[in-house]
Amino acid sequence: MSSEIPLYDIVIIGAGPVGLLLSVCLSRWGYKVKHIDNRPVPTATGRADGIQPRSIEILKNLGLKSKIFAHHPARVHEVAFWDPAPEGKIRRTGTWASCPEFLDGRYPFTALLHQGLIERVLIEDIEKNGTIVQRPWTITGFATNHANPDYPVEVELKNIDSNVSEIVRAKYLYSGEGARSFVREQLGVQIRHLDPISYVWGVMDGVVRTNFPDIKMKCTIHSDHGSIMVIPRENNMVRLYIQIASSTDPDFNPRKTATVAEVQAAAKKILAPYYLTWDRVEWYSVYPIGQGLADKYTLDHRVFMGGDVCHTHSPKAGQGMNTAFHDAINFAWKMHLVESGFSNRDTLETYEVERRFTAETLLNFDNKYAALFSQRQPTAAEVSGAAVEQKTDEAEKNPFIEMFKANCEFTSGFGVAYNGNVFNHTSEHAFQNPLLITDSPKLRAGRILPPADVTRVVDANVVHLENEIPFNGAFRLFIYGGLGASPKKGQHKALSDLSAGLLAPGSFYSRFRYTNRTRDIHHDSDNPHSRFFSVALTLAAKRPEIEISELPELFHDYSARVYADDRRDIKVLDAKASAHAKVGLTGNEGAVVVVRPDGHVGISVRLVEGKGTVEALEGYFKTFTTQGSRTPSDSGLGGGVDQVRAQL
Amino acid sequence: MSSEIPLYDIVIIGAGPVGLLLSVCLSRWGYKVKHIDNRPVPTATGRADGIQPRSIEILKNLGLKSKIFAHHPARVHEVAFWDPAPEGKIRRTGTWASCPEFLDGRYPFTALLHQGLIERVLIEDIEKNGTIVQRPWTITGFATNHANPDYPVEVELKNIDSNVSEIVRAKYLYSGEGARSFVREQLGVQIRHLDPISYVWGVMDGVVRTNFPDIKMKCTIHSDHGSIMVIPRENNMVRLYIQIASSTDPDFNPRKTATVAEVQAAAKKILAPYYLTWDRVEWYSVYPIGQGLADKYTLDHRVFMGGDVCHTHSPKAGQGMNTAFHDAINFAWKMHLVESGFSNRDTLETYEVERRFTAETLLNFDNKYAALFSQRQPTAAEVSGAAVEQKTDEAEKNPFIEMFKANCEFTSGFGVAYNGNVFNHTSEHAFQNPLLITDSPKLRAGRILPPADVTRVVDANVVHLENEIPFNGAFRLFIYGGLGASPKKGQHKALSDLSAGLLAPGSFYSRFRYTNRTRDIHHDSDNPHSRFFSVALTLAAKRPEIEISELPELFHDYSARVYADDRRDIKVLDAKASAHAKVGLTGNEGAVVVVRPDGHVGISVRLVEGKGTVEALEGYFKTFTTQGSRTPSDSGLGGGVDQVRAQL
Repeated sequence: MSSEIPLYDIVIIGAGPVGLLLSVCLSRWGYKVKHIDNRPVPTATGRADGIQPRSIEILKNLGLKSKIFAHHPARVHEVAFWDPAPEGKIRRTGTWASCPEFLDGRYPFTALLHQGLIERVLIEDIEKNGTIVQRPWTITGFATNHANPDYPVEVELKNIDSNVSEIVRAKYLYSGEGARSFVREQLGVQIRHLDPISYVWGVMDGVVRTNFPDIKMKCTIHSDHGSIMVIPRENNMVRLYIQIASSTDPDFNPRKTATVAEVQAAAKKILAPYYLTWDRVEWYSVYPIGQGLADKYTLDHRVFMGGDVCHTHSPKAGQGMNTAFHDAINFAWKMHLVESGFSNRDTLETYEVERRFTAETLLNFDNKYAALFSQRQPTAAEVSGAAVEQKTDEAEKNPFIEMFKANCEFTSGFGVAYNGNVFNHTSEHAFQNPLLITDSPKLRAGRILPPADVTRVVDANVVHLENEIPFNGAFRLFIYGGLGASPKKGQHKALSDLSAGLLAPGSFYSRFRYTNRTRDIHHDSDNPHSRFFSVALTLAAKRPEIEISELPELFHDYSARVYADDRRDIKVLDAKASAHAKVGLTGNEGAVVVVRPDGHVGISVRLVEGKGTVEALEGYFKTFTTQGSRTPSDSGLGGGVDQVRAQL
Repeated sequence: MSSEIPLYDIVIIGAGPVGLLLSVCLSRWGYKVKHIDNRPVPTATGRADGIQPRSIEILKNLGLKSKIFAHHPARVHEVAFWDPAPEGKIRRTGTWASCPEFLDGRYPFTALLHQGLIERVLIEDIEKNGTIVQRPWTITGFATNHANPDYPVEVELKNIDSNVSEIVRAKYLYSGEGARSFVREQLGVQIRHLDPISYVWGVMDGVVRTNFPDIKMKCTIHSDHGSIMVIPRENNMVRLYIQIASSTDPDFNPRKTATVAEVQAAAKKILAPYYLTWDRVEWYSVYPIGQGLADKYTLDHRVFMGGDVCHTHSPKAGQGMNTAFHDAINFAWKMHLVESGFSNRDTLETYEVERRFTAETLLNFDNKYAALFSQRQPTAAEVSGAAVEQKTDEAEKNPFIEMFKANCEFTSGFGVAYNGNVFNHTSEHAFQNPLLITDSPKLRAGRILPPADVTRVVDANVVHLENEIPFNGAFRLFIYGGLGASPKKGQHKALSDLSAGLLAPGSFYSRFRYTNRTRDIHHDSDNPHSRFFSVALTLAAKRPEIEISELPELFHDYSARVYADDRRDIKVLDAKASAHAKVGLTGNEGAVVVVRPDGHVGISVRLVEGKGTVEALEGYFKTFTTQGSRTPSDSGLGGGVDQVRAQL
C-alpha cells in the first residue's frame, strides 16, 4: 500500500511569497515539490507590495529582479513627514532617506509593486523548473510516522472544487499558509502577542488627482482629523493606509469597518487644504491585525512553518513580504545542504533560531514604529536635523536620529544580522583560530557582504562582485588576494598554498568533489568541482595584468570568477583597491571570506602563506559538515543550478 | 475609384532594423502605417548583432532597452588584439576599451544579441500600437502623382504566397528593403563604391570549447595562417568572422564559398596552439560584400530610403544595425513634425543631408579600419601604449592612438555629429544672437547631450537626466537654473522671465499649445501644453530646498520634470553641481539647451533676466516652424506618446 503513495521531497502549502520563493529555490535545485494553494487563482490586486532594498538584492541574486522590475514598480527613495499646522492645515516637517548612504545599499530604495505581479514572476520560474502550483487544494491532515523512514511525513490533501483527496508522503512539509494556518493549529503552536493592542486598518489602491506635493513619495501624515500613510505604486497608483480602529479606543470593535466613500472622505479631510479626488479605485480592504509571533517554527524538524504563519504585525513598515522572502531562502539552503549530504541534520535547528530572532526584532521595531507614528509627533527641529543627518556631529548624536538610523537599517533589510551559531562564527564561538578576522566592522559574521564593483577578467565586464555567485545553494568562498601580492605566475605563494590546500585529498573542499571524473565542467564556472562550493577570486591589480592561466590550479576551472579590483568607488575614493577596502582589507594580507548560500558572512580568515588559512577554514566547516558526499549521483540534484546564474 | 483605395500615412517596406524602428515610432505617435516584409517570418538566427553604446541609449530613451536586455546580450567592454608570435604561435599584443571613459557613455559597452530577438521586441511594440507587419508581401510598383494630393504616393503591393495584389495611397513611402532594393532600382538611384575592393566573408555562430583566454572578448586575431574576428554572443555563443576572399586576390571569385568544416579548420589553424572545438553551430553564412553608398536617399521627399538600401560596408565594426536605427529615428521625428504642422516641409531635406553624411563618415572609417586590420599589424609597443592611453602624454600623441580615439568615438555612436543646418545652429549659422553658447566643448550643436544623474524632486528618485524626456517626437527644453540662483519663490527672476516669455501669447511655445482647453493634463508631465515641447528644469539646489508650487507658472504642469542637481559624479568630483558641470555651466548663469527629439543638441542659450533668452529661442524656432498648429484635433496624432515614457 505505502509503495503506491506518491513520494515527494517536500510538500509546500500556500503560494504566497514564502511558499513561492521556497518552491522557486527547491524546484531549480532539482527537488520533487508538491505545491498547493487553496485560492483558485493567484492574487489579482492589492495585498503586500513593498520590496525592501535588501530583498531587491536577493531577487537580483536569484536572477528575478529584471523580470519583476519589468513591471515598473514605483521607487521610494525618501519618506516625508507631514504634521498638523495652524488653521487646521498640514505641513511637511521633514524628509529622510529610505536607505541612507551609510547603509551602502546597491539599490537604495523600496520598490512598490502589487503582490500578484511578483507572484506571477515566481510562478513562471517554478513552472519552468517542472513544479506546478495546484489549485484550489487544501491540507486536511498530516502526521510524521515511520511507515516509510525516508519519507516520514504523511500529508492528506483535498481539492476544494472536486472534493477529491490525495495522500502523499514527503521528507518535509512546509506551511506558508498565511496567518490562518491549519498546520500551526494542528501542531498546537501558540501565537504570542507581544503588543496587546490590535488594530483595524483600511487600505485603498487607486489613481488620484491632487495638488498634494508629495503624492509620489512615501508619507506619514498626521492632522487634526486623523492620520494616514501614503505609498506610491506602479501605474501611477497610490496606496493609502488609514487606521480605522484601535483596541485602545473606548468603543473598540475588531469587526468595525468603513466603506470606500467613508475612507475617501476621511482622506480628503486629513489632506486639506490640498484637494484629493479619485480617478479610479483598484482595490480596497479593511482588516483587523494584531502583533503575533509563533512560539515555534517546527516541532520535529520535518514539519516547518514560515511567513505570516509565524509572525503578523502592522503593514506600516512594509516588511511582510520581505520577512517571508528571508524565511524562504533561509529554509531552502539549509534543507538542501542536509538532503544532499553536506550538512549535519541538526543544522536545521538554526532555521527557527535565526528567523524567529529576526521576527522578534521586527515585532519590537513595529512596536516602536507604531508608538512613533501613532502617538509621538517629531518636532520640526528634530526632523530637519534628520534630513541633514550626515552633515553635523550634533545631528549624529540626536537620539531621534539614532533611533531612525537603527530602524532604517532594519527596515531596509540590512539589519537582518544573525547571531553566532554553527554557521556564523563570531568571536564568542567555540571554534577559534588566530587567523580569524573577528574585529572588522566591515566583515561581521551573520551580516551580508558589502557591495563592490570589480572588473571580470575573462570578458572585462564591470560587475557587482557580491552578486557574481548566484543563489545556487553553495557556500561562497570570496578570496581577496591582498594589496601587496603580484598576480604573476608563481609570485603569490599564499594563493598557491590555498589552491594546493583546497585541492588536497581529504580537505573540506575535496571531500565533496564530484565523484564523476568525466563530468563536463567546461562551461561551468559556478560549480566546477562540487555543488557545495563556488569560488570568486579578487586581485588588487589591473585587468590586463592578470592572466588566468598563470594563476594556481584551483582557479583555472573558475576562469569566469576571477576579478580585477581596479574600479574607483565614490564611497572609498582614496582606496588603492576599492573592493578590498569595502571589506576592510587595506594591507598586504588578503582574506578568504566564507559567505553562506544566502549572502550572509559565515567566517573570515586571513590569507597567509602555508597551511594556516586552509586549516582555519577546515575548522569552520567541520563544525557542521558530514564526512563527505553521500548522494548517489552528481547529475541529479543540483542539475538546475545553471538557470540560477544571475546576470548583472 | 480612387476614393476606394486604402489611405495610409506611410507605407514601410521591410521589417529589418530600420523599418521596424520607424514603424515603432510612427505607430506610437498614432500614424496609420502599412508595413510589409517579403520574408514569411522574422529573422530566426544570425545576421546583425551589435548594439553600440549610443544605440543602447536610444533604445533606453524609447523604453525598449530592458526588454531587449532581458535576453541577456553579451557585453563587450574591451577589444583584444592578437598577432603572430614566434614558432607559428599567436600572442595578445594589447587591449583597449570599446567605449573609453573620456567618451562618458552611460552604457560603455557593445551589447551582442542576434537580430531576431531585437526584431521580436520591436514587433511586439508595433503590434501593441495597432500596426501589423504583413508577410510575405512585396512591393511591385509605386508612383508619386496628384490623383489624391493629400496622399500623393500610390503603391502596389503583392502577397508572395497568394499573388493577391493591393493598391494603396500614402503620404510617404519608406524603403528599408536591405541591400537589394526594388525602390532604389526603380528610382534609378546609383550606388557609389567608395572602395573598389570587395570581399567574401564567412560568419559562424555557435558554442565552442577552447583554452583561448579571450574567447569572451571581442578579438581581432592575425596569424601566419590568416585572420579572424571573435565576437562573444548571448547564450554562451561566439561569432567568428573570417575573410574568405578579397577582390585583391589574384584568383578572386565573388562567388567563392567555404563549407562549415573548412571555416572551422581555418579557425583551428589560426588559433593554434590554443585548441578550439564546436559543441554546436547555430548559424553559418558566406556572403560577398562591397562598400556602397547611395547617391540620394530621396528624390521627391515623398519616397525615402534608409538602412542597407543606402549604405553597405564590412561587418567588422558592427555598425549596420546602429546606422539603421539612426536612419529610422531621424526620419521619424522629421516626418512627424511636418505632418503635425510644426515644421516646414522643406526640413525633410535634412534627413538625407544628415544621414548620408554619417554614412559617408562610416564608409571612410570602414576603409581605414579594413586597412588597419587587414594590412597593417600594430606593433606591440603601439598597442601597449593604447592600453594605458589615459596615463601619459606620450601616449596621447601616438598617431595610432589618436586614430583609435577618433574611431572608437564614431563606432560607439557618440561621433554621430551633425553639421550645422536649420536644426543645428552652429557658430556658422545665419541666425546669430549674443546669448548663444557656441564655444562650449560640452554643448555642441549636432551632438548629443552629455549624461548626468540628478534627483527628481517629486519622488526623490535618482534618474538619468538625459533620459527623462522620452523619444516622444517633441523638442526638449533642458533648462539649467545656474549655480547662484535660489529656487525660492520669486527669487529667480531669469526663470520667472523665461516662464512668462514662453507662456506669452504668440511665443513659439504658445503658438503650438493645445487648443482644447479642457484637455486633461493632470497625469501628463511630458507634454502638458503641446505635443511639440517637453521641458525639464534642473536647479543647482538640494532636493528639500525646491518647492514646485513656488516655481514660476510654466513648471507647475511639469511637476515630474523638475530636478535637483545634488548628486556627486565621479567624473566631476569637484563640481558644485555636477549636471551643470557636465554641460559646462560653472558660473551663476543658467542656460536653456534645446535638444532635438532624437537627443542631439539644436541650440544652447544663456538664461538671463529679461526677454533675451526667449528672443534667442524664438530666433531658432522661427527658422523652421510654421506659424502655428494646423491639425484639427489635439487628441488624434500623438495620443500614443504616453507609452513612450521611458523608465529609469
